[in-house]
Amino acid sequence: MNIESSFKVSTGSLSLPQPYLLFLGDTTQRGYAKTALGLRDWAPEKCVGEYRLPGATVSAGLEQLTPAQAEARGAQSLLIGVANSGGVIADGWVPSLFEALEAGLDIVSGMHMRLADIPGLAVRAQELGRQLIDVRDPPRGLPVGTGRKRSGMRLLTVGTDCALGKKYTALAIARAFAARGVDADFRATGQTGIMIAGGGVPMDAVVSDFEAGAAELVSPDAAPGHWDVVEGQGSLFHPSYAAVSLGLLHGSQPDVIVVCHEPGREEVMGRPGYKLPSIEETIELNLRLGARTNPAIRCAGVSFNTAHMDADEAAALMAAESERLGLPVADPIRGGEAFDRLMDSCLA
Amino acid sequence: MNIESSFKVSTGSLSLPQPYLLFLGDTTQRGYAKTALGLRDWAPEKCVGEYRLPGATVSAGLEQLTPAQAEARGAQSLLIGVANSGGVIADGWVPSLFEALEAGLDIVSGMHMRLADIPGLAVRAQELGRQLIDVRDPPRGLPVGTGRKRSGMRLLTVGTDCALGKKYTALAIARAFAARGVDADFRATGQTGIMIAGGGVPMDAVVSDFEAGAAELVSPDAAPGHWDVVEGQGSLFHPSYAAVSLGLLHGSQPDVIVVCHEPGREEVMGRPGYKLPSIEETIELNLRLGARTNPAIRCAGVSFNTAHMDADEAAALMAAESERLGLPVADPIRGGEAFDRLMDSCLA
Repeated sequence: MNIESSFKVSTGSLSLPQPYLLFLGDTTQRGYAKTALGLRDWAPEKCVGEYRLPGATVSAGLEQLTPAQAEARGAQSLLIGVANSGGVIADGWVPSLFEALEAGLDIVSGMHMRLADIPGLAVRAQELGRQLIDVRDPPRGLPVGTGRKRSGMRLLTVGTDCALGKKYTALAIARAFAARGVDADFRATGQTGIMIAGGGVPMDAVVSDFEAGAAELVSPDAAPGHWDVVEGQGSLFHPSYAAVSLGLLHGSQPDVIVVCHEPGREEVMGRPGYKLPSIEETIELNLRLGARTNPAIRCAGVSFNTAHMDADEAAALMAAESERLGLPVADPIRGGEAFDRLMDSCLA
Repeated sequence: MNIESSFKVSTGSLSLPQPYLLFLGDTTQRGYAKTALGLRDWAPEKCVGEYRLPGATVSAGLEQLTPAQAEARGAQSLLIGVANSGGVIADGWVPSLFEALEAGLDIVSGMHMRLADIPGLAVRAQELGRQLIDVRDPPRGLPVGTGRKRSGMRLLTVGTDCALGKKYTALAIARAFAARGVDADFRATGQTGIMIAGGGVPMDAVVSDFEAGAAELVSPDAAPGHWDVVEGQGSLFHPSYAAVSLGLLHGSQPDVIVVCHEPGREEVMGRPGYKLPSIEETIELNLRLGARTNPAIRCAGVSFNTAHMDADEAAALMAAESERLGLPVADPIRGGEAFDRLMDSCLA
């Protein structure tokens, strides 16, 4: 089992044409290129090169290729690897998108602005038999959930809040499983994860009646020893997004959850007055609600995002929290023995 | 406060052109006409008459009017009052739909088949400046939930399962509140409810990220003594639809819940092997999760659907269950003192 096969895609969910040529536009801010950098870090085998415009100062460190050169090396699509403020496709990028179509590439975008809204692009794509894929759009024909228990094992990352490392944790766990020779797939439920995995379903964009059904589709029946490592979304305690989290929990029917938390965060992001739940509350509620579709659900441990702390401080806090909770606590970015113990617990 | 004013519509949600001419097509099965019969029972002031085709044997008991006659009496739309198997608009009905447009009426439909898919209908509607409204389609531009506590009081009907009386219970409570002189609005969250209310949001068709936000929109800020009586959807225990229920619970931030149940139902409808939760579990989980957006949430009692029982048996069961739970238990269809006690408890 290698990293590449840990990113297989389930039938019926979005499936992206790969490998990609990463488009960086004329980006000068490293923060805006995080999609491209994430792909380089997590799916290097899916990236044949990058395409920067004059003026760009940010690089993912890949070979600079034109769309035609990339196509000759096997690229199937140009992927917009930029996530700027507002999700706008700049006018200056548009000629490159037409160039990609002419070169025989499809286009993949996670921007708010839809590809089909660029004048002439959809017409030209149709003439050339190329696809325009907006990763924010869920696939059509999603089923209603059945609640049927599926074969194989599943792990879901859940959180005390949004935006604190559920995707990163799932990717790190899938990679660690693969490194241990465990047959595992990362299952993507958000746009960046979908680009990394090459497929998945953007759970926040799915109609509520089909939320659990979409999650069932994301992690289909598998061999008994196989693990799906499912990217979590939102939080059961979030006053705006808990519907997404519950549908995903019910539909993914995890055998194991890993709770993600950012030490020091005390309120729900963007919702002042909404106190963050404790880790214990988060474990308890996810186990209780998850047991509805998988009574065998258990919590294997906790993933801390300690990017804002120094190494000694982080290690001391994680050791103390592990002692207090009676569970492994680790930061997957820091790795080390703590993360090994968390992996042992997941596979126990 | 009268019944009519109990069906005001919140801004931003769907708003239907009223009053209606109820279209019954050529229906010969009473069960298929339940939308029309529900409108006659719950919103008679919104129905100027009915329009049956030759061969129809089912009537809602209203005056038979052509679209032109109905328009002359103030009708704003022809409403398809039939919900047949498959939700198909029969070919034989189509000329009547064109006739309605020509007479100056909009068309309102809750069928699966979309009005715009009838050849020529959308073009003719546009030429005449008429609207085609599919009640299954949620309004555009729904907001993300904020979690902000709104003014006024709210009641939500919740359930041990789907399809056991949450809409009927909410309608009966709104009517009973009005009869007691309490300022109240029925807030619709499903298609039949929306037709009765003249507006609302079909919560099961809303994208998950906006589920709580849509529920916030359905029951906006109101005067301190005002009650919104919100139609519940699904069940927190349903393996397919719990996302809808949780978004609605968080967004409607009820002060009071009434739990709806059908005695004798032991498994989730359509999901064999999924045991129905007990009434106590249903109360406890709804209160726990609802407290996230309204810590003052409480359960006022239980609504039983006893249509399949005889009167004595139903009365004895409700008395015993009321004793056991320490809460009023009533069947709103049977009404009586038990229902009065439930209303007292809601308003306590």
